[in-house]
Amino acid sequence: MIRIAVDAMGGDYAPGEMVAGAVDAANDRPDIRIALVGRQEEVLAELSKFTYNKEQIEVVNATEVIATEEPPVNAIRKKKDSSMVVALNMVKNGEADAFVSAGSSGAILVGGQVIVGRIKGVERPPLAPLIPTEKGVSILIDCGANVDARPSHLVQFAQMGSIYMEHVVGIKNPRVAIVNIGAEEEKGNALVKETFPLLKACPDINFIGSIEAREIPHGGADVIVCEAFVGNVILKLYEGVGATLLGMVKKGMMSDLRSKIGALLVKPALKRTLKSFDASQYGGAPLLGLKGLVVKTHGNSKRLEVHNSIIQCVTFKEQQINEKIRASLGTE
Amino acid sequence: MIRIAVDAMGGDYAPGEMVAGAVDAANDRPDIRIALVGRQEEVLAELSKFTYNKEQIEVVNATEVIATEEPPVNAIRKKKDSSMVVALNMVKNGEADAFVSAGSSGAILVGGQVIVGRIKGVERPPLAPLIPTEKGVSILIDCGANVDARPSHLVQFAQMGSIYMEHVVGIKNPRVAIVNIGAEEEKGNALVKETFPLLKACPDINFIGSIEAREIPHGGADVIVCEAFVGNVILKLYEGVGATLLGMVKKGMMSDLRSKIGALLVKPALKRTLKSFDASQYGGAPLLGLKGLVVKTHGNSKRLEVHNSIIQCVTFKEQQINEKIRASLGTE
Repeated sequence: MIRIAVDAMGGDYAPGEMVAGAVDAANDRPDIRIALVGRQEEVLAELSKFTYNKEQIEVVNATEVIATEEPPVNAIRKKKDSSMVVALNMVKNGEADAFVSAGSSGAILVGGQVIVGRIKGVERPPLAPLIPTEKGVSILIDCGANVDARPSHLVQFAQMGSIYMEHVVGIKNPRVAIVNIGAEEEKGNALVKETFPLLKACPDINFIGSIEAREIPHGGADVIVCEAFVGNVILKLYEGVGATLLGMVKKGMMSDLRSKIGALLVKPALKRTLKSFDASQYGGAPLLGLKGLVVKTHGNSKRLEVHNSIIQCVTFKEQQINEKIRASLGTE
Repeated sequence: MIRIAVDAMGGDYAPGEMVAGAVDAANDRPDIRIALVGRQEEVLAELSKFTYNKEQIEVVNATEVIATEEPPVNAIRKKKDSSMVVALNMVKNGEADAFVSAGSSGAILVGGQVIVGRIKGVERPPLAPLIPTEKGVSILIDCGANVDARPSHLVQFAQMGSIYMEHVVGIKNPRVAIVNIGAEEEKGNALVKETFPLLKACPDINFIGSIEAREIPHGGADVIVCEAFVGNVILKLYEGVGATLLGMVKKGMMSDLRSKIGALLVKPALKRTLKSFDASQYGGAPLLGLKGLVVKTHGNSKRLEVHNSIIQCVTFKEQQINEKIRASLGTE
């Protein structure tokens, strides 16, 4: 029985889409239990719109909400009765196996580390979203949890990313590469140059060398290792270039009558093709290396993303990812 | 009279496309002189295919070629009779105002600094390509010349980028932003945090604060300041995501008969729209802050890009960009 605490109040479409996604996940997997954490009345009002097995979903009251713009450390410390702090405490106390939130990234990162805590031996817990590629999906690790990382952190990211890709995504012997500005070993900044030989010497990963950013969307590696600043730039630029280009394609198609007719004809095929480049189907970004599982879904997540993020937690738990991380990196 | 030395031997399509682009530029602007530098026989064979004013184009013999994979420092030092070294010496000796090459980036960066030399007062010469956005074009500075930059370098990048955007691209009072992982001033890694107040205090730029990578393709700023590693990642990911998405759009359109017919109808409008997102129309990337002008065009440049890069040099010279950089940053 896997138990997941969902932050009903975090995200642009909370609580409506958070509740809807949780109901979908419960209906999809009769073997899971979900705790919707947030303002009881609001959550119950949303829940009443759906049909579901009452034994699978409970509502846990939390009167406060952490807003996106609040300074994270302060918010986690002061808002003891916020949906986020209450849910994270459930993970800490073993009342839940995992926590899913579309709320403030900063608060999730701080709360995950401070309340749930790191596995002993893990130096820094990386935020590791899956990003779509031509060939499927890669994990981008780290993507915002720790700026100014050290080489030893990056090696651990590579190890945790490999475990995740192998056992959650199902890619055997995942190819690990470090983001670099050239393919040769002598290229790079000080961090990359120091990290490269450590990755090369690391026995439990399949290190294939450097990857240039150009090759990431082509699926050049399964585990894309970088420090958080670069990872954040990659993740956000992926979104930005994608949105801009697709917006221009749509605009171009609507520019005259001839192409409007053409657009009607190409639309279904195009939609099918581009679906594979849509990150939402892959769920949220796990914060790896914590004693429990914490998953951050995109702030604008709707029911599909929330549903997928919950199912992702189930796979994570079933595949005993934390046990594997502990075996590989732990010092207890 | 503006004189431009063109590396006839560098790039994937050299010498053919380099020569063709040079001829186009000469025919476009009767007031310029071009020196095609490279293996005389090969260059003359290409030149014989075109009609042009013989007074405008001369061939300067250089028997060696620097290959892309050669270690740059070594190549520049040893291959004294390479097209690149010969052409850079022409700039140094005042026989040419500018140098355009589609050859090895590393060799251009090293050669530019070592042979042409920096303007006194410029700490590091940044490589600054123009990147397309929804609204037009922005300059991305630095993009590969210097890794592990210091805050003072980034401030100079902002100043030089502003001068370029204002006088070469024609954007009045260009908006300068620093690439960051959040919009707030307190966000960022150590370099960004140190640089932010310096940019804020810099009187001769229009600093608007941080820019997240997501906003770059939307045209959120005119001068995008970052250190070279991040700039390189942005530039290459731009290419990679763009190529992957457009490839997928094309593939999607060819997937069944219905959409193939539609594709024929949308094609002209789509082509028109996407042309504005095509970097090649903007010419190459200048290496700013040198005593002469050095422009790196993409390795796969064809005649259009070469032509545009040469015209860009003309604008650079006419607008007296180096004089403006010297007045703003110079210490002589």
